[in-house]
Amino acid sequence: MKEFFKVETIEEVLDYAGSFPVVGTETIPLSQVFGRVLAEDVVSDIDIPDFDRSTMDGFAVRAASTFGASEANPAYLSITGKVTMGSYPDFSVGSGQAAGISTGGMLPEGTDSVLMVEHTDLLDDTTIEAYKSVAPGQNMIEKGEDVRKSEAILTRGSTVRPQEAGLIAASGKEMVTVYKKPVLGIISTGDEIVPVKDVPGPGRIRDINSHTLYGQVLQAGGIPVTYGIVNDNYKALLQKCKKALDQSDMVLISGGSSVGARDFTVEVLNAIEDTKIMVHGISISPGKPTILAKSGQKAFWGLPGHVVSAMVVFAVVVKPFIHRISGAETDARKPISIPARLTRNLASAQGRVDFIRVRLEEKNGRLLAEPILGKSGLINTMIKADGLIRIDMNTEGLEKGTIIPVMML
Amino acid sequence: MKEFFKVETIEEVLDYAGSFPVVGTETIPLSQVFGRVLAEDVVSDIDIPDFDRSTMDGFAVRAASTFGASEANPAYLSITGKVTMGSYPDFSVGSGQAAGISTGGMLPEGTDSVLMVEHTDLLDDTTIEAYKSVAPGQNMIEKGEDVRKSEAILTRGSTVRPQEAGLIAASGKEMVTVYKKPVLGIISTGDEIVPVKDVPGPGRIRDINSHTLYGQVLQAGGIPVTYGIVNDNYKALLQKCKKALDQSDMVLISGGSSVGARDFTVEVLNAIEDTKIMVHGISISPGKPTILAKSGQKAFWGLPGHVVSAMVVFAVVVKPFIHRISGAETDARKPISIPARLTRNLASAQGRVDFIRVRLEEKNGRLLAEPILGKSGLINTMIKADGLIRIDMNTEGLEKGTIIPVMML
Repeated sequence: MKEFFKVETIEEVLDYAGSFPVVGTETIPLSQVFGRVLAEDVVSDIDIPDFDRSTMDGFAVRAASTFGASEANPAYLSITGKVTMGSYPDFSVGSGQAAGISTGGMLPEGTDSVLMVEHTDLLDDTTIEAYKSVAPGQNMIEKGEDVRKSEAILTRGSTVRPQEAGLIAASGKEMVTVYKKPVLGIISTGDEIVPVKDVPGPGRIRDINSHTLYGQVLQAGGIPVTYGIVNDNYKALLQKCKKALDQSDMVLISGGSSVGARDFTVEVLNAIEDTKIMVHGISISPGKPTILAKSGQKAFWGLPGHVVSAMVVFAVVVKPFIHRISGAETDARKPISIPARLTRNLASAQGRVDFIRVRLEEKNGRLLAEPILGKSGLINTMIKADGLIRIDMNTEGLEKGTIIPVMML
Repeated sequence: MKEFFKVETIEEVLDYAGSFPVVGTETIPLSQVFGRVLAEDVVSDIDIPDFDRSTMDGFAVRAASTFGASEANPAYLSITGKVTMGSYPDFSVGSGQAAGISTGGMLPEGTDSVLMVEHTDLLDDTTIEAYKSVAPGQNMIEKGEDVRKSEAILTRGSTVRPQEAGLIAASGKEMVTVYKKPVLGIISTGDEIVPVKDVPGPGRIRDINSHTLYGQVLQAGGIPVTYGIVNDNYKALLQKCKKALDQSDMVLISGGSSVGARDFTVEVLNAIEDTKIMVHGISISPGKPTILAKSGQKAFWGLPGHVVSAMVVFAVVVKPFIHRISGAETDARKPISIPARLTRNLASAQGRVDFIRVRLEEKNGRLLAEPILGKSGLINTMIKADGLIRIDMNTEGLEKGTIIPVMML
């Protein structure tokens, strides 16, 4: 019986992520910052907003001028001016006075709140009746209430969503320093693999893994670079691996699931200088025959050849490593888990972690997870799947009806 | 009191999506297909796999030759050959015979299953002992078992994930016809708005909405094109809107939250030929002062100026329209909702749908949704938020502990 010599648990393997360094940084325009990881704290050059700002259309007033006002007993206020949008109001407002203001306008000297236009009536050109009182600070945003000058509301390691980009804009930054996207070299191996353009001859199949991994790398925030197909040939594989390692931050080689090819990968890794095999086999299913080596400071993965296995290993093991070298401190790229109810009993072998493909379905307001069983060589099972569930190592299985977290695919 | 003349419910507004046509199609290389919407059914040119394929390392056999085999009573099989990877095995295997085969290899004539190498011992160069029986079809994938030739497993309107790209590769397609990404024109308005590069003078603020909307359009699968900032000036606004409508599939104008600007937007829309205001106000909070017009066949949105309002309206209303014109039949871009437990009581006004920002937190294995209350002019509330929850129109509020779906931001 063939034994892998360093089978480790998934947790042990994930712990190695910390031993790989974060990629370098680059400074890019604000418009390209979406999905990127900040390599600097973002600090605003001004208070946001930089003035007391109305959030309603109405009248800027001193709140005390409206106290006690009601439908039955309105307050009468005299209009002293009108605030022009985008301008400094060069007048002040005293007790019993009011100034017309629009949403976004700057509150004049002497005011501390805004009376909504809906709660007033214009008596004549210079007087309004107010039917409601306002409290100080009402219907306005105070200077610096959103973000204070020099406050670092966004910190290094955060991933930029649209709202973070908005805040960076508000802070006056047109250029932002972010971590580079890691470059991932992708190699497919196997004498039986042919490129997409070819019609496979007898015993041959088209290269699928290069394309699924390409997409998964994109999703994980990396830059995929494909190195094509290498036959089960030691010299060719060595050359290709060296080239990919040289040009990438991390390398994924898939296939080599046949005995010979598997041996080649190990042989090749042993032949590359400053390279050490850290993991040879992970106690997960699918995906056991996975290799992790450290070559210089770079991770080199030998992924299984079966398409499902390679995709699952990528999702549950490789992705956290990409995340780590991308500089992300917060787990923004961590797959979102959705709780759902298992639709059938699932048995599981002890001594390994099982990842089961599931389809999500909503029924009577409940989210159901329907297991998709099928061989790990069948890509159609991944097409049907929405996500993966995990059955832990020392569990005999999961019962129908259990609520389980689903990691989206 | 200022009344909007056509306030509609969010459901009524969403129903208008169907009245806008889907964008055109384009044919692109496989490597660019991720996240795109298929505009054709994908049919394989061959059976996948195109031959009976081993999923294990071991021996291809006729299952009947192993029936009854056990540790105590092994079956003896004679080795008649070895399958070379990627080649047609030009020999056949009879009863009581076996042929060496690797994972991915083609089963020779006469075999119907694969005996795992772990369940055998090599007696000599020509004989193995088998310690287990196999059933016909075991440890192999049958010709066409993954996908049958001419079967359309991927249909028009599906969004391409990595696994769909893998299947397209397996089907032999190097070029794929997809729907174009819709082009979204983005305009910011307001006399008080200055570009990011400027330090805002008194009463002015930097343009945030152009940047948040830019990111949201990218996330929704569109191509954002910014048209800069237009002052509250009828002529300038008319010109800019015409230009954006001309060059885009959909236009988003934000701001104009001051009375004057709001009137301008309506005036401008009335002045553009073949343009009809469909919605003027949506009974949602935040985001009530939203305008939807149809200009020719294109949607034109007037979004609120407050950054939170504009982002919420985009997430809950605009995005489904982008989705619709993108050609997606399946709701692949539908925001994923995650059930979480509300951490406090939330009151809500009747007669409108409320969208509340929440932060997600995991505590004792439970996902909690913590409401973030705050003015809709404060972008920091969106930075803190992970998602939105919805309180329906005829609900007085939600009780602490209720499980509610969270739409991720």
